[in-house]
Amino acid sequence: MEKSDFTVLIVGLGLMGGSMAKALAGFKNCRLLGVDTDKDVLSRACQDGVIEKGFVRFEDVDSKLDLIILCIKPGATLSFLQNADIDSKTLVTDVCGVKGYLKEAGAGRNFRYIGGHPMAGREVGGYVNSDAKLFENASYLLTPSKDSKKEDIELLKEMASYIGCRKTVITTEDEHDQMIAYTSQLMHVVASALCDSPFLDRADGFSAGSLRDCTRVAKMDSKMWTELFMANKYCLTECIDSFTDSMNSVKTALINGDADGLHNFLENSCQRKRRYLNEDVAR
Amino acid sequence: MEKSDFTVLIVGLGLMGGSMAKALAGFKNCRLLGVDTDKDVLSRACQDGVIEKGFVRFEDVDSKLDLIILCIKPGATLSFLQNADIDSKTLVTDVCGVKGYLKEAGAGRNFRYIGGHPMAGREVGGYVNSDAKLFENASYLLTPSKDSKKEDIELLKEMASYIGCRKTVITTEDEHDQMIAYTSQLMHVVASALCDSPFLDRADGFSAGSLRDCTRVAKMDSKMWTELFMANKYCLTECIDSFTDSMNSVKTALINGDADGLHNFLENSCQRKRRYLNEDVAR
Repeated sequence: MEKSDFTVLIVGLGLMGGSMAKALAGFKNCRLLGVDTDKDVLSRACQDGVIEKGFVRFEDVDSKLDLIILCIKPGATLSFLQNADIDSKTLVTDVCGVKGYLKEAGAGRNFRYIGGHPMAGREVGGYVNSDAKLFENASYLLTPSKDSKKEDIELLKEMASYIGCRKTVITTEDEHDQMIAYTSQLMHVVASALCDSPFLDRADGFSAGSLRDCTRVAKMDSKMWTELFMANKYCLTECIDSFTDSMNSVKTALINGDADGLHNFLENSCQRKRRYLNEDVAR
Repeated sequence: MEKSDFTVLIVGLGLMGGSMAKALAGFKNCRLLGVDTDKDVLSRACQDGVIEKGFVRFEDVDSKLDLIILCIKPGATLSFLQNADIDSKTLVTDVCGVKGYLKEAGAGRNFRYIGGHPMAGREVGGYVNSDAKLFENASYLLTPSKDSKKEDIELLKEMASYIGCRKTVITTEDEHDQMIAYTSQLMHVVASALCDSPFLDRADGFSAGSLRDCTRVAKMDSKMWTELFMANKYCLTECIDSFTDSMNSVKTALINGDADGLHNFLENSCQRKRRYLNEDVAR
């Protein structure tokens, strides 16, 4: 079947962009193009049949584009939205883990932009680790503005479903950043702080599943997460404060020998976790 | 094949005791007896062929015992070691997650005791969830005293290997408690404190693997963990302090806009975690 007129450009063929390109194969029978600064990645993606054509710079792309998906770091995403020369017929989205800092980026520009955030990732990065199944059963967050067109939102929902996401959640940039500060960023800070201990070097033989699971995401792309944390510093700082307050209430109960208080704390959290698990299963 | 003269009594047929009983089937061709306060659990375990005979009270056990394995809560373990009438020919061990508080428990008693701690567990408890494979690839910690007999240590190592553990680590009570405060207890406190947040109630759709993994063990037996934490409060409090210091250094970097400092922190932890993973794989 000949390719349709629908052309998608993925900017950045790392873990997210590579996975997106692989998962999008066949979507609307589209032509898939890619931009990456690494020529080897472009050749590899072309050889794999994942993209039809690759470009080192966005400026070199010579086709009319229906959809641009930015799969680059937070700073680069902001810079692209502020500076790239984009046609008014093109819909632009991104996969960046923070949304509020991009709010004003497209102001005054004539292209259409809707922020996106697929809740998926891995501890390893790069095109070499990209996987068409990365988004399976994930949630896809979208942050349309009041000016966003209904058909643009529908297109992105259709795309999210096509790549395997179990649902799309429509939210605002502010709610997104507040929730993500807890559900994702705080977890990464905690995992990292747990590994900031000489005990970890001696833990082999003394550990079981809890150490493995609580510290899993400490193996992270530290440059990317530094950008994400900095771009959401107010929400994240509030989450850290609440969390350390909770830690300190455990400490206080221990010091005071307050077994009942400690038990209440643990049992309340256990119940809340159970409710969360049930909700997640039920929906 | 007729049962040998070797008789093992398991006290407490919950998750640990039930799993231990199931995993020990055939070990030294032993007779397996069980004590549990719940008559239904005893009947079920007899019907399942997991134990040969069950008793509601230890005092009712009418056989000569070679090995007693205590699979009961920390307080009950202490009380048993202090008060139970045990033959001097019997070796006693336990599976309690804290060891220091038991140090003096057997003092003046005439039985042989070696502390044990298989590094395995689940978020669900009770005989109904017990599993012969619970200990597979786990580490088994032993805390013999200077008076412990070599053959007793060897017997427990043989047992650990038989139930599927990948290795046995010989350690002291103090080292055990210091290490476990970090590798296990701190992880459980952190998971619990992470769930002490109203954000968790709204997290469905906004979360991915990091929330799931960091909070997995918050679904815990809160009574048992209260006892374990209280019995190791000094080591655990130190771990909480170091950890919250680490959390606060992330917060300070965020507030000061110190991207380099934040990046260094995340990268150092990432490297430490990588070293740990390599070590664990290599050994």
